[in-house]
Amino acid sequence: VKPLVVVNPNRADLETVDALGRLGVATVHEAIGRGGLLGTHLRPLWPGATMAGTAVTVLCPPGDNLMVHVAVEQAKPGDVLVVATSSPCSDGLVGELLATALRVRGVRGLVIDTGVRDVATLREMRFPVWSRAVSAQGTVKASAGSVNVPISIGGTVIGPGDAVVADDDGVVCVPREEAAAALAAGRARVEREQASRAAFAAGELSLDRYGLRALLETLGVSYVDARDRERR
Amino acid sequence: VKPLVVVNPNRADLETVDALGRLGVATVHEAIGRGGLLGTHLRPLWPGATMAGTAVTVLCPPGDNLMVHVAVEQAKPGDVLVVATSSPCSDGLVGELLATALRVRGVRGLVIDTGVRDVATLREMRFPVWSRAVSAQGTVKASAGSVNVPISIGGTVIGPGDAVVADDDGVVCVPREEAAAALAAGRARVEREQASRAAFAAGELSLDRYGLRALLETLGVSYVDARDRERR
Amino acid sequence: VKPLVVVNPNRADLETVDALGRLGVATVHEAIGRGGLLGTHLRPLWPGATMAGTAVTVLCPPGDNLMVHVAVEQAKPGDVLVVATSSPCSDGLVGELLATALRVRGVRGLVIDTGVRDVATLREMRFPVWSRAVSAQGTVKASAGSVNVPISIGGTVIGPGDAVVADDDGVVCVPREEAAAALAAGRARVEREQASRAAFAAGELSLDRYGLRALLETLGVSYVDARDRERR
Amino acid sequence: VKPLVVVNPNRADLETVDALGRLGVATVHEAIGRGGLLGTHLRPLWPGATMAGTAVTVLCPPGDNLMVHVAVEQAKPGDVLVVATSSPCSDGLVGELLATALRVRGVRGLVIDTGVRDVATLREMRFPVWSRAVSAQGTVKASAGSVNVPISIGGTVIGPGDAVVADDDGVVCVPREEAAAALAAGRARVEREQASRAAFAAGELSLDRYGLRALLETLGVSYVDARDRERR
Amino acid sequence: VKPLVVVNPNRADLETVDALGRLGVATVHEAIGRGGLLGTHLRPLWPGATMAGTAVTVLCPPGDNLMVHVAVEQAKPGDVLVVATSSPCSDGLVGELLATALRVRGVRGLVIDTGVRDVATLREMRFPVWSRAVSAQGTVKASAGSVNVPISIGGTVIGPGDAVVADDDGVVCVPREEAAAALAAGRARVEREQASRAAFAAGELSLDRYGLRALLETLGVSYVDARDRERR
Amino acid sequence: VKPLVVVNPNRADLETVDALGRLGVATVHEAIGRGGLLGTHLRPLWPGATMAGTAVTVLCPPGDNLMVHVAVEQAKPGDVLVVATSSPCSDGLVGELLATALRVRGVRGLVIDTGVRDVATLREMRFPVWSRAVSAQGTVKASAGSVNVPISIGGTVIGPGDAVVADDDGVVCVPREEAAAALAAGRARVEREQASRAAFAAGELSLDRYGLRALLETLGVSYVDARDRERR
Repeated sequence: VKPLVVVNPNRADLETVDALGRLGVATVHEAIGRGGLLGTHLRPLWPGATMAGTAVTVLCPPGDNLMVHVAVEQAKPGDVLVVATSSPCSDGLVGELLATALRVRGVRGLVIDTGVRDVATLREMRFPVWSRAVSAQGTVKASAGSVNVPISIGGTVIGPGDAVVADDDGVVCVPREEAAAALAAGRARVEREQASRAAFAAGELSLDRYGLRALLETLGVSYVDARDRERR
Repeated sequence: VKPLVVVNPNRADLETVDALGRLGVATVHEAIGRGGLLGTHLRPLWPGATMAGTAVTVLCPPGDNLMVHVAVEQAKPGDVLVVATSSPCSDGLVGELLATALRVRGVRGLVIDTGVRDVATLREMRFPVWSRAVSAQGTVKASAGSVNVPISIGGTVIGPGDAVVADDDGVVCVPREEAAAALAAGRARVEREQASRAAFAAGELSLDRYGLRALLETLGVSYVDARDRERR
Repeated sequence: VKPLVVVNPNRADLETVDALGRLGVATVHEAIGRGGLLGTHLRPLWPGATMAGTAVTVLCPPGDNLMVHVAVEQAKPGDVLVVATSSPCSDGLVGELLATALRVRGVRGLVIDTGVRDVATLREMRFPVWSRAVSAQGTVKASAGSVNVPISIGGTVIGPGDAVVADDDGVVCVPREEAAAALAAGRARVEREQASRAAFAAGELSLDRYGLRALLETLGVSYVDARDRERR
Repeated sequence: VKPLVVVNPNRADLETVDALGRLGVATVHEAIGRGGLLGTHLRPLWPGATMAGTAVTVLCPPGDNLMVHVAVEQAKPGDVLVVATSSPCSDGLVGELLATALRVRGVRGLVIDTGVRDVATLREMRFPVWSRAVSAQGTVKASAGSVNVPISIGGTVIGPGDAVVADDDGVVCVPREEAAAALAAGRARVEREQASRAAFAAGELSLDRYGLRALLETLGVSYVDARDRERR
Repeated sequence: VKPLVVVNPNRADLETVDALGRLGVATVHEAIGRGGLLGTHLRPLWPGATMAGTAVTVLCPPGDNLMVHVAVEQAKPGDVLVVATSSPCSDGLVGELLATALRVRGVRGLVIDTGVRDVATLREMRFPVWSRAVSAQGTVKASAGSVNVPISIGGTVIGPGDAVVADDDGVVCVPREEAAAALAAGRARVEREQASRAAFAAGELSLDRYGLRALLETLGVSYVDARDRERR
Repeated sequence: VKPLVVVNPNRADLETVDALGRLGVATVHEAIGRGGLLGTHLRPLWPGATMAGTAVTVLCPPGDNLMVHVAVEQAKPGDVLVVATSSPCSDGLVGELLATALRVRGVRGLVIDTGVRDVATLREMRFPVWSRAVSAQGTVKASAGSVNVPISIGGTVIGPGDAVVADDDGVVCVPREEAAAALAAGRARVEREQASRAAFAAGELSLDRYGLRALLETLGVSYVDARDRERR
């Protein structure tokens, strides 16, 4: 586990990533077989924030943001920074200055499994961030880590160049090689859902539309009228 | 503990429930002897959301929303859905499609001890939700549960037809039979508080208004001037 | 550990405190050597809230707000209330009525390591609060505590009269005697950061500006091109 | 929600409760349709502790153990005390003195959704306790609560006289009226499990014994040899 | 908040501290007015561990144990090390080697608001530790902190030379100047409790012994027989 | 992210794995550059449990143990099962029956990021388990997952065939290809530590042995005598 910076990783196709972003997190998660979520502990800095891009992954020691500075140089337009630490940390590893440096490189936003600070300014800048915490706690630049190696957050492995989509529902990661298939599956799902939405709006019951009544019987769910119960 | 759907439970009087809603969660909680709260972990989807209605209760296995679909059919105008799981769960059991189906039935909102998803859309729809988490994690429809049986969240038991009031302060449940008494007690409290508010705004100290100085003496609280302390 | 109310504690100079408030939490935290933070669990009632003042400290038993009423009398214009409990508590120790009483005394806001309630009204009043939770849970007035003794929140000791600054990034406390030095150090830091911000906006890399490349070499961080890796 | 002490509630048959205790928590939980668990946060004071009895339920305000003293008088041989609070609490509501008083009344042990103290002595006494925490924090006797009303812990409702079984796996509650049925179902399950245990010990695979291979195919689970993967 | 090592602080009288240790944590906590506890999150490495001594306080940056090495030199026979960090940390700041070094200096044990490692060896050495976590995560020696300045854990301030008592119930700190008074109050409490214990063992009810029946009536607690309730 | 069972993955050399097990978790973690830990939330079923083996990885949907049954067939002598779920889960996915089946296959133990049950029996069997929780909560066998694909726990990626070492300090994973290098580095570290242990036992200070006094001066740590402070 030597400290390593991988330069020029392949990235998912940016048009595909942008299209995944328009589908949204919940649809993309379903499209890849209910996977890829980074955990409910990552929350956006403001309601309505959305973001899609290709991952530059960063692995930092806790309380140390040296490798984030390294990652700035590796970032390209269309990227998003995804930062994890080697043991749990809520310190403010990224603030306004790093956000300024990232934006200049064309970075679209940040997913970070620690804290961030200067959040009032980040909101004014409209620099989208999904983080574990807000924390003013400062950090050092003293220990080595890695950039663009596979990291994991919330049980999901994120590789360099993977497609990352984030919105109010959280953050989802799609492996680079599966981005195109995910887009196709997601679009099909959106169509199916539009039909269901219209049906439900028109008063059809999902029990009927999804054919669930037989399942309920199989499972032994019985119906009883409250007034019959009280009589007994 | 057989899976059971209870049809047509008695419900608290809706006018009474609406009046409780106007009192707000803190007042209703006090009016019923400091009870009925569902826990600080349930938060509204947007600041300022408010809701009052009669409970349709749902007990789901974790990660399974089959019984929410069953509950849609049992819901009537004025109801709110209250969903618990048989073991801890943060998955997104309800999203935009179910919200659409619930709204068509006249359901006023949702209290759910798991996650929800499509929250940007839920906010646009102004469909009020109090939940433990936001999570895109999808669920299955595979196992049985119950509808309109007593459930519990945060140590409070919620029965079908109980009055549920929710606002920025959280969620409170009033047993159906106690709704009218709660309303009377709550209104009395509001009047008392209006007098106190005016007094405090005019500069009266609560120590005097509530007669607390004698209690402080009984409890042995002593006053000392900082300047005397330093002199020693 | 006798219950004690200390009257007339010395307070940090209010002009200095106001100037610290303009620097913001992150800068003040750095200026005092990365200290003084009260923990990421304290969150503001609304985004963008800011506050600075001199501390009136309150130590309550859990679930008991008697000493908050005592503290109201001790408060002066420019103060902020800082409330801790002797064992963990999330109950709503402060609500709209106490906020009204505090505002009349010139108190600028509240930092509280428990819950608050009536938060919709507190937001309307624009009475700034940083709290551990929102909770409608009512409290009693039955047991003794202390006012204006040293308390601690999140590992930081807060003394009466200390400077307290709070914003979206959290809450920081500066010991009364160190307020002036903190202001000087903070202002110097702001100047340094302005130069860095301009440099980053102009495209300079922080690796170069901070001279980090030598450190990376010392730490054994190696660079490898992804295309070379795959070839092997 | 008036404070209430219910005297002489019906209790589950003690022989049945004892037999449920011999089945253990996991088996009883399965026997009642995977229900009744009080949550993984309740842990025994020592490994290997076991207990079964009929519930005397206690609802206390947080930080106040007055109603536990009331419950002592209501307890009979074969009972176990089950204590919840109206808002979250980890204080030490019960210690050695109350355990002594409970044991004299024939109480078999304690389930408590707060802390306990004097735990070294409780272990020496072999007085079994399942609690949320160990805490020396003392409590007051100042506010009302109830005894032998339905309470809930971890989402499970516990009524007076219900059967409570506890062991290393946690705590399970069986409604009084369902105790006999639960015993029958549990015994049937034990027999089935003994056959499976013998089969597995003899090397039979559960995939075969439970007929799961067809399900895997339906679910689209595919097998691939690692050596074939690498060749590609 | 300059980094500082205070040499030769006054220490509480060791005979008094030893006597406090014999009283135990719960009694000492009560004797000082229900204060001084360091939180339920600190747990001993083995059941039955006990410890009493005078505090050497250590404030470390998270993930950095440099100041623990500094503290070793400041320790004297009869001391216990009490370690906090300036932001939350669960890393293993202390292991077997430091424990060996501490024991040689006559240090009796460790209270640490982070993790420890080599715990199997620490148990064999019978070196008592109360910690927030067990963690093998290694640390650096890179940043400054302080020794023998006031620190705080779980809301309690610990000063150098304070009396620290720890057992299965947790950890309590008594300010150096109050140690003698705490011992006297604790001994009086032990006597009172012995009388109560004997009374309870003989069957007296605490309701009677503590005169609680009048309070129950004042609080409006009513008694009802379950058989009367059902008849209605 | 199709459900997949990978058959016959390469495994780390078992003699090397056994030797890593003798080094222990803390040493192995340091030997691979302070990496590989699976998190402090995973605790052993009994103090003193130790285990080393090659990973069979299992990815389950929450509340569903179907894939554990699949994994039994893939296990070989010397393996350990490592189980993660696709969203957070504390249910009892593994109990005595599965442990029996695993032991018959030569599996040495279990690391599981959910709950386990029948823990009294597992302890009697001396089947070592590191888990997030103890939970009697039963599970279903209804949804697909994967076996022997890379999974992650606590931010660490575990691949099939990787070396897993577990003891009282937690669990560490060494990538298959790095096992031999980790063993060499770990052995070198053990030797260095033996020399330090002897030196510390003989009274040498770590400040001197590690040459830390110069660092303290660089960092601006100043020493002051308490008696001088008071005089001022």
